[in-house]
Amino acid sequence: MPRYALLVEYDGGPFAGWQRQADQPSVQGAIESALSKLERREHTIAAAGRTDAGVHGRGQVAHCDMEKDWDPFRLSEALNHHLKPAPVAIRACERVSDDWHARFSAMERRYLYRVLARRAPCTMERGQVWRVMNPLDADAMREAAVHLVGLHDFTTFRSTMCQAKSPVKTMDEIRIEEVDAYAGPEIRFHLRARSFLHNQVRSIVGTLERVGTGAWEPSRVAEALAARDRAACGPVCPPDGLYLMGVGYPDDPFA
Amino acid sequence: MPRYALLVEYDGGPFAGWQRQADQPSVQGAIESALSKLERREHTIAAAGRTDAGVHGRGQVAHCDMEKDWDPFRLSEALNHHLKPAPVAIRACERVSDDWHARFSAMERRYLYRVLARRAPCTMERGQVWRVMNPLDADAMREAAVHLVGLHDFTTFRSTMCQAKSPVKTMDEIRIEEVDAYAGPEIRFHLRARSFLHNQVRSIVGTLERVGTGAWEPSRVAEALAARDRAACGPVCPPDGLYLMGVGYPDDPFA
Repeated sequence: MPRYALLVEYDGGPFAGWQRQADQPSVQGAIESALSKLERREHTIAAAGRTDAGVHGRGQVAHCDMEKDWDPFRLSEALNHHLKPAPVAIRACERVSDDWHARFSAMERRYLYRVLARRAPCTMERGQVWRVMNPLDADAMREAAVHLVGLHDFTTFRSTMCQAKSPVKTMDEIRIEEVDAYAGPEIRFHLRARSFLHNQVRSIVGTLERVGTGAWEPSRVAEALAARDRAACGPVCPPDGLYLMGVGYPDDPFA
Repeated sequence: MPRYALLVEYDGGPFAGWQRQADQPSVQGAIESALSKLERREHTIAAAGRTDAGVHGRGQVAHCDMEKDWDPFRLSEALNHHLKPAPVAIRACERVSDDWHARFSAMERRYLYRVLARRAPCTMERGQVWRVMNPLDADAMREAAVHLVGLHDFTTFRSTMCQAKSPVKTMDEIRIEEVDAYAGPEIRFHLRARSFLHNQVRSIVGTLERVGTGAWEPSRVAEALAARDRAACGPVCPPDGLYLMGVGYPDDPFA
């Protein structure tokens, strides 16, 4: 069966998350349902990142196995046709080898978290950013973020529901960008790692926000990390601002 | 009665337009209804630009007259509270003189039109951009746009429903920006003029898109303008990508 890699974009708002669920809409379910319109059988796809409810995908990667030898472009067009009106789109599709795996071949995940700092409620950005009322000190957050880069035990920054075998992960980058966006001053957190723990990005950004407002000293983030205690984490921020931006592979099928 | 200038942002999607209507939701109606929660009577507000259904506001300006002497910040906060859950927000509020008028004092309007060129349907940007299937040649569109800058009879580029007394207007700027956005290659048209005719921006951008795809030579835009004939216009593009970005005043109340 020929295998295809899919570059997937979605608005996480209306979904219970990436993963298929019996009685709730999911991104995986939407794509599998579109696949079953093309080849009438059960389909099971795998993805690089199983995003939570409300989390968005810009560069999620999945793979599917087909019976027919599809032209990749025609497959993406047919899937986009059957995905309507769900806010899920196949940005690109490529034939890959049978042993290529969207999840297990992945070497890197890149996430973006958007925070909009303004008093007024969101209009156009509703569901797409986390709106905070107070301005954030980006330099203080950068100083705090340094403590989290590198190889650490991230027990403090993972959900108690996290199923990963080990809390030890290497954070390759936390870059904090200040953008003068149309809606106001926006802080964009760019995080990069081989893999992430459950709720790790939202736990980190929620904690850094405490530093940004001045409620926490930057050094308190180092103490929280060293505590290896979930209770030492700042408040977990909402899914709205979180985007899976891209996945890295030894040989990128979409390059 | 003290007068207040309001800087208004809204998602035009759910509204029949700015202007109050008897039986359809409007942005004006939403704000007037919020005002009537603060002072129980009929309110009538005026705005710089009466945007059409589906057109968004980033920097719309309106004014209202109050009986009470409101602190401007408290007035904006109270309005935002009562505007919920409508996607309308007061970004700023300032006390202005009694003869200041959001519409008649305005010296300049700035519009943005966003076009996303990609095959895949929109997900996050749905209703916020015009998605076109083919890449657009920005340089060809720039060459064509030059013909439209300056003082011209814009009969070709205004709706037959336009109520302006004269079709003669001065277009101060049409700037075409190429942006490598998260969703793909985006073309942003920035238009600036003292005032605009009905459907003028959407008529111009729809016509320039014909040039961008190569269907029209840039010089055909000069011919269309010279024809002073609505039938010479290209297809009017959808409201989704259009934003009223800002309004200029001799002394900007929000500066």
